[in-house]
Amino acid sequence: MRSGRLVVEEVPGPVPGRGQLLVRTVACGICGSDLHALHHGDAMAEMAELTAAANPDNPLPLRFMDPAADVVLGHEFVGEVVDNSQASGSAAVGAVVVSVPATLDRAGLHPIGYSNRYPGGFGALMVLSGPLAITVPNGLDPHLAALTEPMAVGIHAVGRSAMEPGEAAIVLGCGPVGLAVIAALAARGIEPIVASDPSPARRRLAAVMGAHEVVDPGNEAPTDAWRRADPRARGRSLVTFEAVGTPGMIDTAVAASPRRSRIVVVGVCMAPDTFRPMLAVGGELRIDFAFGYEPAEFAQSLRSIAEGAVDVAPLVTGRVAPDAVAGAFADLADPEAHAKILVVH
Amino acid sequence: MRSGRLVVEEVPGPVPGRGQLLVRTVACGICGSDLHALHHGDAMAEMAELTAAANPDNPLPLRFMDPAADVVLGHEFVGEVVDNSQASGSAAVGAVVVSVPATLDRAGLHPIGYSNRYPGGFGALMVLSGPLAITVPNGLDPHLAALTEPMAVGIHAVGRSAMEPGEAAIVLGCGPVGLAVIAALAARGIEPIVASDPSPARRRLAAVMGAHEVVDPGNEAPTDAWRRADPRARGRSLVTFEAVGTPGMIDTAVAASPRRSRIVVVGVCMAPDTFRPMLAVGGELRIDFAFGYEPAEFAQSLRSIAEGAVDVAPLVTGRVAPDAVAGAFADLADPEAHAKILVVH
Repeated sequence: MRSGRLVVEEVPGPVPGRGQLLVRTVACGICGSDLHALHHGDAMAEMAELTAAANPDNPLPLRFMDPAADVVLGHEFVGEVVDNSQASGSAAVGAVVVSVPATLDRAGLHPIGYSNRYPGGFGALMVLSGPLAITVPNGLDPHLAALTEPMAVGIHAVGRSAMEPGEAAIVLGCGPVGLAVIAALAARGIEPIVASDPSPARRRLAAVMGAHEVVDPGNEAPTDAWRRADPRARGRSLVTFEAVGTPGMIDTAVAASPRRSRIVVVGVCMAPDTFRPMLAVGGELRIDFAFGYEPAEFAQSLRSIAEGAVDVAPLVTGRVAPDAVAGAFADLADPEAHAKILVVH
Repeated sequence: MRSGRLVVEEVPGPVPGRGQLLVRTVACGICGSDLHALHHGDAMAEMAELTAAANPDNPLPLRFMDPAADVVLGHEFVGEVVDNSQASGSAAVGAVVVSVPATLDRAGLHPIGYSNRYPGGFGALMVLSGPLAITVPNGLDPHLAALTEPMAVGIHAVGRSAMEPGEAAIVLGCGPVGLAVIAALAARGIEPIVASDPSPARRRLAAVMGAHEVVDPGNEAPTDAWRRADPRARGRSLVTFEAVGTPGMIDTAVAASPRRSRIVVVGVCMAPDTFRPMLAVGGELRIDFAFGYEPAEFAQSLRSIAEGAVDVAPLVTGRVAPDAVAGAFADLADPEAHAKILVVH
């Protein structure tokens, strides 16, 4: 990413420092946040600064990218270790690994894929922190291991919701984030899961990932679909996951939420957004904002994919070479055609 | 309240139905919500309708006022029972009672003071639900018992926060709601309590009610004041109570909140409000919206006043006769002069 455009060219490879592995990238998914970075890089950098300002005591300052300088994007990666000489005791040469997309050095915490120093997975080579790399179990298709990161987002959001069996879930938006939430809800035994998306293809994927009821919000309000489909809706507590991330969605969720229900905002709305606080006050709603995941949730995500608890194969709707990334970014605008596109090396 | 104005005139007295007490009002506090009702009655009615629409399964539909018809306002009342013949077994004739401001009849749940049918405490006579009336303990000044309702709002908001000793609290806004929150925090042993208000008089009251540090937000950010005053701020978890209720305050609270901290919105902002979701997402904040109280919290509020655990006398800054209510509404605009004005009969 250079000056808000995607370019493909040869650059010097990254050099592993103490504790770091050099890996050859195998595959890397394209994420909605990559599109945000391309189009709203300045806003993302400003938000990172504001978040840092609100946390002056943070001992690990985040070294977020300068969007005006070159960035190799890509944070949903899987790679093969080619040099572990700086990180003995971690993954072996030849091992296929994933990692949370962050590395620590003396300057602070760098988000891999949003860093001017540490290239992301759209590049051919990366350096990872040895202690954070997890070896992909033998027998798991490395391309599916690239889904570890986006599926971890769903595990985390559901964890933040503190949902328990017996509660109902509505998921607004069935892009990769919403689909990851649905998979995590299903794995937790939540029933019913009602999924809402205007796209028929996305609704089909939602059902595949475990939604019990899917609805086109242009035809029926998701809360109405829930009450229609769930004979025990009355008296059941509800958690709504907002996984669209466009302005107005929080107000939509707030206005539809019954008294004392919870909303988990996992969609990332970059723009200022307007809602009616009086409706949230009147209903005594709770809004939890969820972002990212913990390392343990990332590891859990890999395990659940490797053990077959979650089948992520249907989510992979395309594979492109690195020189076709710009076209793939454009293709992702069509929800009928694509959910997750992998950049394969 | 008639057509958005306050008028004083004789109207037929209310007649107690089955299970109801007739009381002669002794005193009734003026609340910010009364001012909202006067100036934004249509918006309040619309919000009540929208809340009802989001709760189609509610077995107790709320019968909110039609603001175009006459309403006798006043929901922070204390009264003396003059007729208990329809509610034998409840309070005795001559007893001084308070009650949650709601009564149930065959038509549903009526909010006393926001009802066209059930007059509020700015009127000379009221009917209350016998089972909901609580006798004020002998020896407690009935005027102070009128503070039971607003102080219960603070108890409820602090209860919703699930705060525990060892956590820090910031209270934005030291009007009656913020002051009630401060008193409830102090009663729960929370320390430090940092209170923020532009008004010196309100800051003095905040200290009287138990704030450990008070700050003028025009001079210093409340989070900075907290870190300055609390040697153990680093690593302590924070809950911010938004008790102002004007547009922009939620964004102010969100932007200042450190990672994983909580915000409890107890101020009632009637207008649509804009905030930056990305900041809430990046910090994984939680926003709880608190409204009203449970009957048990209302009873707890009366006990804590009667037992002297909370001294509400400093909050009463004025007493007016019913024919001076309109002037008192205007006087409340000056935070230097007033916190709570009681209408006394």
